[in-house]
Amino acid sequence: MPRVVFLPANVTVEVPEDETVLRAAMRAGLHINASCGGAGVCGKCRVFVEEGEVEGESLPEGGYKACTLHPRTDVVIRIPVESEVDRRALLRPLRRVATSWLEARGPHAFPHDPMVEKVFLELTPPSLEDNLADLPRLEMALTKAKALERLEVDWKLLKPLPHLLRQEDFRVTASLLREKLLRLEAGDTTDRLLALAVDVGTTTVCVELVDLLEGKVLEETSDYNPQISYGEDVISRIEFARREGGLGILHEKILDCLRRLCREVCQKRGIDPEEILFYSVAGNTVMSHFLLELEPRFLRETPYVPVTSRYPLVPAEELGLPGRGAMVHLAPCVASYVGGDITSGVVATGLAREEPLTLFIDIGTNGEIVVGNRDFLACASCSAGPAFEGGGIKHGMRATTGAIEAVHIDPNTLEPMIITIGNKKPKGICGSGIISLLANLFIEGIIDQSGKYRRDLKHPRLREGRDGWEYVLVWAKDSATGEDIVFTEADIDNLIRAKGAMFSGYQTLLESVGLEIGALERVILAGNFGSFLDLEQAIIIGLLPDLPRERFFFIGNSSLMGARLAAISKEAQEEMERVAGMMTHFELSAHPRFMDYYVSALFLPHTEIDLFPTVKKWLEEHGTLARR
Amino acid sequence: MPRVVFLPANVTVEVPEDETVLRAAMRAGLHINASCGGAGVCGKCRVFVEEGEVEGESLPEGGYKACTLHPRTDVVIRIPVESEVDRRALLRPLRRVATSWLEARGPHAFPHDPMVEKVFLELTPPSLEDNLADLPRLEMALTKAKALERLEVDWKLLKPLPHLLRQEDFRVTASLLREKLLRLEAGDTTDRLLALAVDVGTTTVCVELVDLLEGKVLEETSDYNPQISYGEDVISRIEFARREGGLGILHEKILDCLRRLCREVCQKRGIDPEEILFYSVAGNTVMSHFLLELEPRFLRETPYVPVTSRYPLVPAEELGLPGRGAMVHLAPCVASYVGGDITSGVVATGLAREEPLTLFIDIGTNGEIVVGNRDFLACASCSAGPAFEGGGIKHGMRATTGAIEAVHIDPNTLEPMIITIGNKKPKGICGSGIISLLANLFIEGIIDQSGKYRRDLKHPRLREGRDGWEYVLVWAKDSATGEDIVFTEADIDNLIRAKGAMFSGYQTLLESVGLEIGALERVILAGNFGSFLDLEQAIIIGLLPDLPRERFFFIGNSSLMGARLAAISKEAQEEMERVAGMMTHFELSAHPRFMDYYVSALFLPHTEIDLFPTVKKWLEEHGTLARR
Repeated sequence: MPRVVFLPANVTVEVPEDETVLRAAMRAGLHINASCGGAGVCGKCRVFVEEGEVEGESLPEGGYKACTLHPRTDVVIRIPVESEVDRRALLRPLRRVATSWLEARGPHAFPHDPMVEKVFLELTPPSLEDNLADLPRLEMALTKAKALERLEVDWKLLKPLPHLLRQEDFRVTASLLREKLLRLEAGDTTDRLLALAVDVGTTTVCVELVDLLEGKVLEETSDYNPQISYGEDVISRIEFARREGGLGILHEKILDCLRRLCREVCQKRGIDPEEILFYSVAGNTVMSHFLLELEPRFLRETPYVPVTSRYPLVPAEELGLPGRGAMVHLAPCVASYVGGDITSGVVATGLAREEPLTLFIDIGTNGEIVVGNRDFLACASCSAGPAFEGGGIKHGMRATTGAIEAVHIDPNTLEPMIITIGNKKPKGICGSGIISLLANLFIEGIIDQSGKYRRDLKHPRLREGRDGWEYVLVWAKDSATGEDIVFTEADIDNLIRAKGAMFSGYQTLLESVGLEIGALERVILAGNFGSFLDLEQAIIIGLLPDLPRERFFFIGNSSLMGARLAAISKEAQEEMERVAGMMTHFELSAHPRFMDYYVSALFLPHTEIDLFPTVKKWLEEHGTLARR
Repeated sequence: MPRVVFLPANVTVEVPEDETVLRAAMRAGLHINASCGGAGVCGKCRVFVEEGEVEGESLPEGGYKACTLHPRTDVVIRIPVESEVDRRALLRPLRRVATSWLEARGPHAFPHDPMVEKVFLELTPPSLEDNLADLPRLEMALTKAKALERLEVDWKLLKPLPHLLRQEDFRVTASLLREKLLRLEAGDTTDRLLALAVDVGTTTVCVELVDLLEGKVLEETSDYNPQISYGEDVISRIEFARREGGLGILHEKILDCLRRLCREVCQKRGIDPEEILFYSVAGNTVMSHFLLELEPRFLRETPYVPVTSRYPLVPAEELGLPGRGAMVHLAPCVASYVGGDITSGVVATGLAREEPLTLFIDIGTNGEIVVGNRDFLACASCSAGPAFEGGGIKHGMRATTGAIEAVHIDPNTLEPMIITIGNKKPKGICGSGIISLLANLFIEGIIDQSGKYRRDLKHPRLREGRDGWEYVLVWAKDSATGEDIVFTEADIDNLIRAKGAMFSGYQTLLESVGLEIGALERVILAGNFGSFLDLEQAIIIGLLPDLPRERFFFIGNSSLMGARLAAISKEAQEEMERVAGMMTHFELSAHPRFMDYYVSALFLPHTEIDLFPTVKKWLEEHGTLARR
């Protein structure tokens, strides 16, 4: 991997092939003015290559656009000092908390022993001396081969049975799920065994085509949950479901989506979707209800009761999903707002099999948390809302192309350095960008601890807009929308309430089981923005607790991982059942101290600054608070 | 019950209310000329009432038509002596073997413990302190109430679950089949528990609406199997099934018929067919295959292999049969030509639970036999063909209105006395009539031991017709068809081959298990004509073995009885499985002595007359054989 030495700060970083110099600089904690998100249009991010070979767009006035630049060998790059103000910034690269991405953690290792299996049988053809009927002939061979006590056979399998047996002279392949015969094929088809792992999120649906023989993902794809048209969040969709025919529409929309994604991954590999033998689905309780067209109404009416917490296996055919004889498994849920996605996620982390006391955090459209280890599990949902997915934020957006995913603000010029997903002109700000921006505004003393803009700072980017005070992150000329991209005090307020709900959630849940935050030996972050989340920034704003950094991990889409594991490993599927069974759900709002915790958390990072010792120390040392 | 003294023979019989004097006379072994089958049109059956009160049609020339006459008190009836020939006949009433109907035997008593059950549950409604989901709430209560290890719930039951639970404040009735939840209803519905018992015969379909709470039949009905239009016997239907779409047609026809009969019995009782919770079906292997649309082709191709011998439970809904959540149980079969009707029949007799060595005979479209007791069971099918159902007999017909069901021939005048079903003008001859006629012809020496008409007997009723020699049983003027009803030598030949197939079947099967006919402690006759069958006549023609008469019983439609028992009693259903499992099937034609036995049986009653000692003795004593 090429190394880049940034001058004049003399900071060295390794740069992966697909990373631009702009991104590498941000990762290194170095500021380069950059307004267009890496689209290469503003030309502000000029750098000079002093040594080594590079690829990228050069500028007529000399130098290269950092946002397009890739080193091909070890290089030395000078960030130009455009002004004295810039110089001050460059000479103080560590004034801000060092950018630190979360360490990625892979899924827990479960034994490779898929839920479904294929058995090739060479039966003795019947004769006058041995004219046992077809089914018992198959049954005897199969129960013997797999040491089964009995074989469960749906009557519909009887129709093709005699023909399949005789097609290749009584050489057949039987597909089993436990003691249930799912499919019968002529000849030997044991070289193919496929499953689809599915994460049905409120916003996004992700699928993986899994080769169960190898236990590996062949293809993956994802798309927005088409139910979004009927409501952004689960509550509005439950409301929609109450209308005449509404539930049916939501049910069909998600199935349509699954069928489409399934076809897509199969097509990429030239696989007939009818080959799929198992669907392993994880989704929150509401999504699971919609998937099976179950009444969601009582999920949001006290006492918040799901139709079921464990779902029976469903024949794929009955849901109109492809796969002859395939069965659909849904991850069990714990409560109305702690669903199969969490159960699945906990399985993926393996935390319920290990000793360290772990906090599992899934920040999606809502926030769900689990605390525990192999001995106990407690969970709760935090009413955090969708702020971290861009919901309720004026220019918030989902983490797609054109979303600002990382921000740095020059402490002297207050000019931003932004990076967008896909290096496109910015359209809005997604979760990780929002956290990044909030942390920067706070660190640089542009907002105070209660999230208000400092009225005394005179700067064109700080102004009173239609929605109150705001910071202009991108000027209209540089944005994809042709409008200023701003970050309002109302946005900040929403974010503080969201992070407050999360933090007070950790406190309340831990107290419910007689523990404190300091006792946490590990924090695992699941969800979409984990990979882009700057750990220090998340701690600075008080979204994550101020614990030793080596205790933090991110695992990505653990719901999908768990779904995949449940397909690949019977033990993982059993672990799902066990996790769902041992998880104690706490209704946070019912806890007497919850409101106190919540109100105290409505501060940056927290009213009790001693809960955030490293943030306190940094603020003291760097004097940012003194700017106020 | 009124008693009738017949003069001049001075024979007394008791006459049930619904029996005519004509029938009573035949039962008493007395001849009255009667040509119109009891329709009251020929007026030949004149009798005089000398004492007592009667109801019936009087004749202008005095006396009454015996075929319409019912005694209301004890009566004395004189049969007029129309000629000297008649007188001789009347004075020798015992010249023929006394008419002896078979003793009826009821089904075996199994404990009342239906396959399906209803459980009324009063669940604790959920609260914030106890917000278990709906399904596990139900599950816990149900598994506890019935001490179940687990509960199997189809996902489709989840849809209505939350509404049903809340409809009557969490008071619900669950319907179970073993550990499977079939249906859920709001409130207490345990006062209704209904099943449909079904016998799917090749010719006739019989159903009973069964109240499982009381274990009794509420209604019954039957109809022809509509598949008859596509073939009279199983072989021709299997052939039809091989045509494009043929199997589907046969499948739909029988289901249509079941739906119609089901509606019919329910309507009679004002019951919603959707209340039905269980279908217990018994049918031969071919009928069972058609019912489930299973490939019948290999049933008739060597080595004669059914698709299955035990049928999985089938959701009624998937067969388009009414009954929310109802399941369809099919009696297990033993081989291609020993089906669930036989398994069911054996269960109904209870012979597999008792000590006496029993021969079970089911003469339907084909003949199936079972020999055994509680220790062993052996079975076989005899290629008897449909002769005893009227098939292959020139004027043969099924046992419906207008069929001649009993015949007596005056030994002197050779004039017949006939009785038809429904006392209508005769249309043809059914099974019991055929046996009756054949026995009479033989006893009276009108045919010889090989079944040929005596050419030397000059009588208008004996003639050479288009199809060879024949006896005119009914003249055209007295028949419903306006044609002579005759009985040809070809008919007799068919019957002798049919009874020969049966008798050699008994011998071969018994020899296969190391036994002889004399060892039989009991003979149970199943099938339609058992109740009309004259035991002595059946023995005389060699259809039944010549054993002490008290060893014979008839049980009627044992297939239907067994189906009903399997619905009413888990033990009976388990007995079905056990019977099917312990039954050894013998392919008679594979036995080295079968052909010898068969050829020897092509004689009346048998080539080895010593096998029929009482027939031999009677013939010697009454000298009928001497007529030849």
